[in-house]
Amino acid sequence: MMDKPYDYCGIFGIYDHTDAALLTYYGLHALQHRGQESAGIVSTYYDEKKGRYVMPMHKDFGLVLSVFDDAKIFKKELKGRSAIGHNRYSTSGSSRNPANIQPFRVHYRNGNLAIGHNGNLSNARTLRERFRHEGVLFQSTSDTELILHLISHSRKETQMEQIMDALQQIEGAYCLVILTDTKLIAVRDPNGFRPLALGMIDGSYTVASETCAFDIIGADYIRDVEPGEVIVIDREANARKEPKSYYLEPQKGTSSSQCIFEYVYFSRPDSKIFGEMVDKIRRNLGKQLAKEHPIDKILNHPDPDKKPIVISVPDSSNTAALGYAHENQKAGNDCKYDIGLIRNHYVGRTFISPGQKSREQKVRTKFNTVKGVIEGRSVIIVDDSIVRGTTSRYLVDMIREANPLEIHFLVSSPPITHPCFYGMDFPSPDELIANRFNRDVHAIAEEIGVDSLRYLSAEGLVTAVREANPSRHGYCTACFTGNYPVPVDFGVQKEENEIV
Amino acid sequence: MMDKPYDYCGIFGIYDHTDAALLTYYGLHALQHRGQESAGIVSTYYDEKKGRYVMPMHKDFGLVLSVFDDAKIFKKELKGRSAIGHNRYSTSGSSRNPANIQPFRVHYRNGNLAIGHNGNLSNARTLRERFRHEGVLFQSTSDTELILHLISHSRKETQMEQIMDALQQIEGAYCLVILTDTKLIAVRDPNGFRPLALGMIDGSYTVASETCAFDIIGADYIRDVEPGEVIVIDREANARKEPKSYYLEPQKGTSSSQCIFEYVYFSRPDSKIFGEMVDKIRRNLGKQLAKEHPIDKILNHPDPDKKPIVISVPDSSNTAALGYAHENQKAGNDCKYDIGLIRNHYVGRTFISPGQKSREQKVRTKFNTVKGVIEGRSVIIVDDSIVRGTTSRYLVDMIREANPLEIHFLVSSPPITHPCFYGMDFPSPDELIANRFNRDVHAIAEEIGVDSLRYLSAEGLVTAVREANPSRHGYCTACFTGNYPVPVDFGVQKEENEIV
Amino acid sequence: MMDKPYDYCGIFGIYDHTDAALLTYYGLHALQHRGQESAGIVSTYYDEKKGRYVMPMHKDFGLVLSVFDDAKIFKKELKGRSAIGHNRYSTSGSSRNPANIQPFRVHYRNGNLAIGHNGNLSNARTLRERFRHEGVLFQSTSDTELILHLISHSRKETQMEQIMDALQQIEGAYCLVILTDTKLIAVRDPNGFRPLALGMIDGSYTVASETCAFDIIGADYIRDVEPGEVIVIDREANARKEPKSYYLEPQKGTSSSQCIFEYVYFSRPDSKIFGEMVDKIRRNLGKQLAKEHPIDKILNHPDPDKKPIVISVPDSSNTAALGYAHENQKAGNDCKYDIGLIRNHYVGRTFISPGQKSREQKVRTKFNTVKGVIEGRSVIIVDDSIVRGTTSRYLVDMIREANPLEIHFLVSSPPITHPCFYGMDFPSPDELIANRFNRDVHAIAEEIGVDSLRYLSAEGLVTAVREANPSRHGYCTACFTGNYPVPVDFGVQKEENEIV
Amino acid sequence: MMDKPYDYCGIFGIYDHTDAALLTYYGLHALQHRGQESAGIVSTYYDEKKGRYVMPMHKDFGLVLSVFDDAKIFKKELKGRSAIGHNRYSTSGSSRNPANIQPFRVHYRNGNLAIGHNGNLSNARTLRERFRHEGVLFQSTSDTELILHLISHSRKETQMEQIMDALQQIEGAYCLVILTDTKLIAVRDPNGFRPLALGMIDGSYTVASETCAFDIIGADYIRDVEPGEVIVIDREANARKEPKSYYLEPQKGTSSSQCIFEYVYFSRPDSKIFGEMVDKIRRNLGKQLAKEHPIDKILNHPDPDKKPIVISVPDSSNTAALGYAHENQKAGNDCKYDIGLIRNHYVGRTFISPGQKSREQKVRTKFNTVKGVIEGRSVIIVDDSIVRGTTSRYLVDMIREANPLEIHFLVSSPPITHPCFYGMDFPSPDELIANRFNRDVHAIAEEIGVDSLRYLSAEGLVTAVREANPSRHGYCTACFTGNYPVPVDFGVQKEENEIV
Repeated sequence: MMDKPYDYCGIFGIYDHTDAALLTYYGLHALQHRGQESAGIVSTYYDEKKGRYVMPMHKDFGLVLSVFDDAKIFKKELKGRSAIGHNRYSTSGSSRNPANIQPFRVHYRNGNLAIGHNGNLSNARTLRERFRHEGVLFQSTSDTELILHLISHSRKETQMEQIMDALQQIEGAYCLVILTDTKLIAVRDPNGFRPLALGMIDGSYTVASETCAFDIIGADYIRDVEPGEVIVIDREANARKEPKSYYLEPQKGTSSSQCIFEYVYFSRPDSKIFGEMVDKIRRNLGKQLAKEHPIDKILNHPDPDKKPIVISVPDSSNTAALGYAHENQKAGNDCKYDIGLIRNHYVGRTFISPGQKSREQKVRTKFNTVKGVIEGRSVIIVDDSIVRGTTSRYLVDMIREANPLEIHFLVSSPPITHPCFYGMDFPSPDELIANRFNRDVHAIAEEIGVDSLRYLSAEGLVTAVREANPSRHGYCTACFTGNYPVPVDFGVQKEENEIV
Repeated sequence: MMDKPYDYCGIFGIYDHTDAALLTYYGLHALQHRGQESAGIVSTYYDEKKGRYVMPMHKDFGLVLSVFDDAKIFKKELKGRSAIGHNRYSTSGSSRNPANIQPFRVHYRNGNLAIGHNGNLSNARTLRERFRHEGVLFQSTSDTELILHLISHSRKETQMEQIMDALQQIEGAYCLVILTDTKLIAVRDPNGFRPLALGMIDGSYTVASETCAFDIIGADYIRDVEPGEVIVIDREANARKEPKSYYLEPQKGTSSSQCIFEYVYFSRPDSKIFGEMVDKIRRNLGKQLAKEHPIDKILNHPDPDKKPIVISVPDSSNTAALGYAHENQKAGNDCKYDIGLIRNHYVGRTFISPGQKSREQKVRTKFNTVKGVIEGRSVIIVDDSIVRGTTSRYLVDMIREANPLEIHFLVSSPPITHPCFYGMDFPSPDELIANRFNRDVHAIAEEIGVDSLRYLSAEGLVTAVREANPSRHGYCTACFTGNYPVPVDFGVQKEENEIV
Repeated sequence: MMDKPYDYCGIFGIYDHTDAALLTYYGLHALQHRGQESAGIVSTYYDEKKGRYVMPMHKDFGLVLSVFDDAKIFKKELKGRSAIGHNRYSTSGSSRNPANIQPFRVHYRNGNLAIGHNGNLSNARTLRERFRHEGVLFQSTSDTELILHLISHSRKETQMEQIMDALQQIEGAYCLVILTDTKLIAVRDPNGFRPLALGMIDGSYTVASETCAFDIIGADYIRDVEPGEVIVIDREANARKEPKSYYLEPQKGTSSSQCIFEYVYFSRPDSKIFGEMVDKIRRNLGKQLAKEHPIDKILNHPDPDKKPIVISVPDSSNTAALGYAHENQKAGNDCKYDIGLIRNHYVGRTFISPGQKSREQKVRTKFNTVKGVIEGRSVIIVDDSIVRGTTSRYLVDMIREANPLEIHFLVSSPPITHPCFYGMDFPSPDELIANRFNRDVHAIAEEIGVDSLRYLSAEGLVTAVREANPSRHGYCTACFTGNYPVPVDFGVQKEENEIV
Repeated sequence: MMDKPYDYCGIFGIYDHTDAALLTYYGLHALQHRGQESAGIVSTYYDEKKGRYVMPMHKDFGLVLSVFDDAKIFKKELKGRSAIGHNRYSTSGSSRNPANIQPFRVHYRNGNLAIGHNGNLSNARTLRERFRHEGVLFQSTSDTELILHLISHSRKETQMEQIMDALQQIEGAYCLVILTDTKLIAVRDPNGFRPLALGMIDGSYTVASETCAFDIIGADYIRDVEPGEVIVIDREANARKEPKSYYLEPQKGTSSSQCIFEYVYFSRPDSKIFGEMVDKIRRNLGKQLAKEHPIDKILNHPDPDKKPIVISVPDSSNTAALGYAHENQKAGNDCKYDIGLIRNHYVGRTFISPGQKSREQKVRTKFNTVKGVIEGRSVIIVDDSIVRGTTSRYLVDMIREANPLEIHFLVSSPPITHPCFYGMDFPSPDELIANRFNRDVHAIAEEIGVDSLRYLSAEGLVTAVREANPSRHGYCTACFTGNYPVPVDFGVQKEENEIV
């Protein structure tokens, strides 16, 4: 996939470490691909002067490196030995509302509490209506605020009971990191839609959406937070190296359904999620693609003198393309993995491009072809997915200008046909190219201007993932199949900000 | 008074005018002296596209002219025919919290609602505790948010009933402008602590803290909002020119108690408040001062050849000084009103002045003497009030350098000895110079370095005010006398921001 | 005058003081009225590390308090015991060019040199053409840069000779402060158009455009820099308390011609310029006005029961109005000085006021009337000058709304009819109200809507000034009379910025 | 090379195109890798109102997309049909001086002139001294300003003669784009150190440092600007499609000497420079590396079951690694090209990393390993060059943590041992790792922690380049060999800014 029309969030937490906030900063930077709109960190410490715990917070719009561009933030503000952090990309609503930047922090009758949330609640509307009717005022349009009101309004006595009370009322896709005055709590929804891993550094626990956040700080991966698991790290748990676990019941009739699209495109290749390295899975998707669509069945005009070349759309489909090429080579189908597209990584918030050519110019701004590689060759482009298809079309136009013999487009996932209600921000269904052309692959191929287009089958996708990761957990493939594991309150629509 | 160590807020509202937001902007500018920390405007209109009312808002830290420095704000954002606005100077708490900038706007089950508030609730702590216990989360430390929660949590059916329900639960000093989708509501607390006036422009109603806001837009003053009155302007009321009025009961045993310090120092001299021009009252305070302390009783070394001069501390005591001089002249006590101090009006947020001389340098930065006027003369300085006294001392030092014959300091109000719980941000009681020297006028005179110091008596103050404004309403003189008209929850203390 | 359509610059310098830059900051703040567009300070010290003198500089657009809003600027940047500073208001050209902000600082073959300049060179065009022809590139449109090129291109050997060489080539109105590695130099042009004073603080010399800058830092006024004098302060001069003086020859046929408009309007009343207090001069202008136009000759409908009132347009005409009132009283013409106009001192760079009513709204934003003072009275407004007249008209409209008996307008200077080529930024001659109505006072009175209008005579102006300040120096009255003391290169027009 | 410790500049120009400034913006974005510190564009048009040509300019610190983040800049400011642009990375001096941001624009007696410059003048010091002695003042520390003074001080009559006069006096490495009121001029120094290409779009000429700037706008590459060529595009030349060419004489005894490091690392792989695609050259460097160091001669512990893997340091050594792998495979040396390192492309100006671990953390922030790829394998890292070596060391540490069998480090260029005086900003010679260890390859290998380290030979480098690009022009290899083609004024040292 060339662009990122969808994105979720990245979360990170660490308990009792001397550099808590700084390590959170590095962790968030490693998770930057999960959300580029805003970033924030909350830490906690006991303020001797005030005689109570305080939770300093720093958050703003922008990339992690730009929100935290001053070392003073760590030295003077974000003091304390425990911290949580959040990268956000809005999945709906007026995303530029500063009140929606996470983590959220409150002070209520049982102390301080901060929360970072990755996902969407599927019963958000119902909960919000209930609160509205009671007269509760909201300050954000974020589902996360609902969780805070649930905790604060809970009639249970202890904070931990209040949190469990709240968690039992929410449904949907969510991973949470919660920081209290003395605890770090990590929660993964009962279906396990989004990844969340537990790690350890210098004898202290840490949690992160993806393990690449552990690598950047030199932490060790221990295990995944299990679907439905609520892990509580407090002083005792940290000392004994035995985190306390509680479990949430899955919704009736559902079981684990991890988001397969995390493997296809979203997570970083160097992360281990759902128990396996993403890179390995993607390689296997490429191999499966080679099995379903071996190169010798694809080419229309094979040139006996020049090997066909397999190229990726950098960087997201690099390993799938490599897997595809290697598998073909192994099967005796001669081909060469090569670099046919160069990506310009200098990116800004704004790109000025007036008029009709806007999208085309944007593609040219991000990519260029390596003419010597493409010219006169049969070119197989391997991409991870196609969403709207416009970017693909302009990219193919560019490749065509470099005079290849022929262009075949392979996609290491099936056609995207259904919206995601669990956190992915796909465009509306009628903007998806697979729907626009009624899943007529020939028509889509014509639209994007290639000699042929081939998708990985839905079965092939699951097979390849299971082959590489024989976990006992299931996957959600709703965006490809329409099989939604959890019923959704389809009327979900966000209200305006309520107190500003 | 040379400085403004205390300040409240200014509020403004207008109903059904084609330039609603722009007139609010001018009105707020005229009320700038009531609050220099932040400014905000909310307007309302029916959005045909959305099929419902919307309430655009623009607010930020800074002076009115700087917060609204772009004409686009009015053309593109603050559309609609009704608007309210607010200037704020924090009376307590971490004033730089952006969440505290007013007006506040919410969307709740009965529609949009915005509120601008001038004053302090005396039962804020009790209300806040009650809400906290129920699990309500706060986003600001402002008392104003409590009013919103009271309205939103009210079990009454109509919005107007909910608002009345809320108003009946709050106590203290407050003036409110409330904007709903279709109404403008103006409220003055039953004691009438702060001023609020009703005006008319181009056939539409407008309300403002002081009438100087009417003058700037060319509106006519109609009458004051009465203590305890809730004025509702809706389409019908505006058409018939008959605003609807509801009344709040005063707290047991209390009656109207308008803040006399508004007359002494705070309001603009060109405003009519509590039914009379401030300028006229101040002039009378000067005259009363002349009656209590005629110039011939003051001078130690009258020079038969040179008239003593009466000077003000510009601009706040100009009219009191003029009144003092004229009354003396009328009584045959020869003297001359002159300009002996020049004020530099260029002011910024920051003034760099390291070390001990800081406050002295600040005074020198703001004032300079006119040596030719002062030299060799008996000088009578008339000031409106003395708070800490430090500024007075440095000012007197400066005047002394210009070689006057003698310096006498007259204050057109009594010694300030008590804190204000109704909105004034005085320093702590032990910082008040009158308390520091146990109200020993001689000791205070010595401290500030004058040959003599004389205050207006508390009786004289009330007499002079009543003489110039024989209104049926009473006055609050608590800061001078300690007689608090409304009991106060002395434990008032603000919590940290609750959701951020 | 109600507005400031014209303005020059303020300069300040100090030699060998431990707080050199900080005192310059205070001095510039006191001179803020002379230029509000930009501010800058340069200091000098010997950098042990670098083994040479360095000249740190800090300058930007904005008021002094905002340009220098960080104490670090003084602690870490502007180190050293000597400094100069400059406030600027552009007198022509694209004023918002940052390259035009003063002081200018260069490093050339003879060391560092910084310069601050107040005025206009009348032979700038000729000099610029000469340099352009030689191929010299300019980085600013400022006349000041010419002086730097003259110094740098001089073939003389020592820096002091180069500076004298340069000064002998420039003509026009200028005051300069020059800072070299080891000297502070103050220059006043041979005609002495602009004021420049020499002072002393803690045994060190200081110079400033006006003495109010000495008062703010507690320095003593010693004497004026004489017309044509070049005062050099170096280590020796400072130690002996004997500044070295050099003299520039006046242009043929000319003698001293100090700007009389400085007395009329521009300088601060608490400053001593051209050897006398401005306040005293202005008072005398008011008295002279009373002699030429006594109040009993002015009134059309004197009310025997109510004294006529004399009001000023605050703050600029306060003392002239007071002088007028006192002189009338002395002459037995009964009248009362009062405050009939209130000025709102909150000002910003932007004021939003769309459409036709713009100027009127601007006046209403700045001023308000005190109705109780004006109503039913004969009102005499004393203003210092009238430029375009539009502001006067709207002000009179406002006063009229307060229902006076009659309004008479007195101006404590003659009609402005000619442009200033020596630094004042008057509008073009055809925009001056006196020219628009061919100096027909009745027509002007009608235009601004008063019952009568009276100016001080040109003779009266000079007489009153000379009476209060019997100095041997002459005055420039060109803006009132067209008598230009120094011939001007009328083609003066600024080029665009040359290197940017 | 993992980092960019050195960088030059990118320049772009276009003549007579309706979107001149906008195309320049895209072109500069494509050249962003050549300079990330600042960006600027100047255009030219005839202003009917002013009756003369004007040259609007927009420039600032920051990346192209951020400096030009407002479409208004193009619509309202940078009007006209011709434009030039510049990206800058300072090669010396106080780089953060805004006066050094290019292009530079002047207005002198022969009209407007703007210039963008890529490179360093080797006789800058001499020229600067000459001008200083004459009294010329400088406003920047940039060599480019010298060219402007040379043109402006030239005694030649026409602008074109003045420009040629100036060019004949400068020495060193430079490419220039010059914009006059009616001409676009492109200059490449006689040695041709830096690349500069001529292209055409929509019938109009364009020039750019690299052809990737043509691809982004859809322009066609025509030919390189030749070493020593001065190409002039005016109305006639553009109409006839015949640019006028003038030639500069090379310095005595020198001939063309194109910077070979542009091929090794600096230019983009998708650009054609010096007449050939960079990608093709780099691939050939990889192949040559395979010839000099075939994989079977490298491995210490070849595992018969697992192929050794060849990995790059993304993205700069991707093609060299691919060339190395392919050549080995062709030669029957079994190996696999794989992706073992992932690069995080989110970058900011600031990266907070206190204390000793700073550089290590920076490497971890930018790279991560793909453990599944590396574990248990023989790993060959191919990098393009090693400068300081610190980054390499930390990168190797990271790879080591993924448990490879062995790590061998191959560099597709020789050891860097000498400073560059023609524009590259290498660290001081004693910081270069090759010098620190006296070119002892074993010692360097030990320092960076690899099992073996191998460089491409200097002969191999030139051979491989010549093989892929049999051009008649020579190359500069001074940084590898110390053979400087042009004598350098070694005392080069920049003065402080001269007028600010």
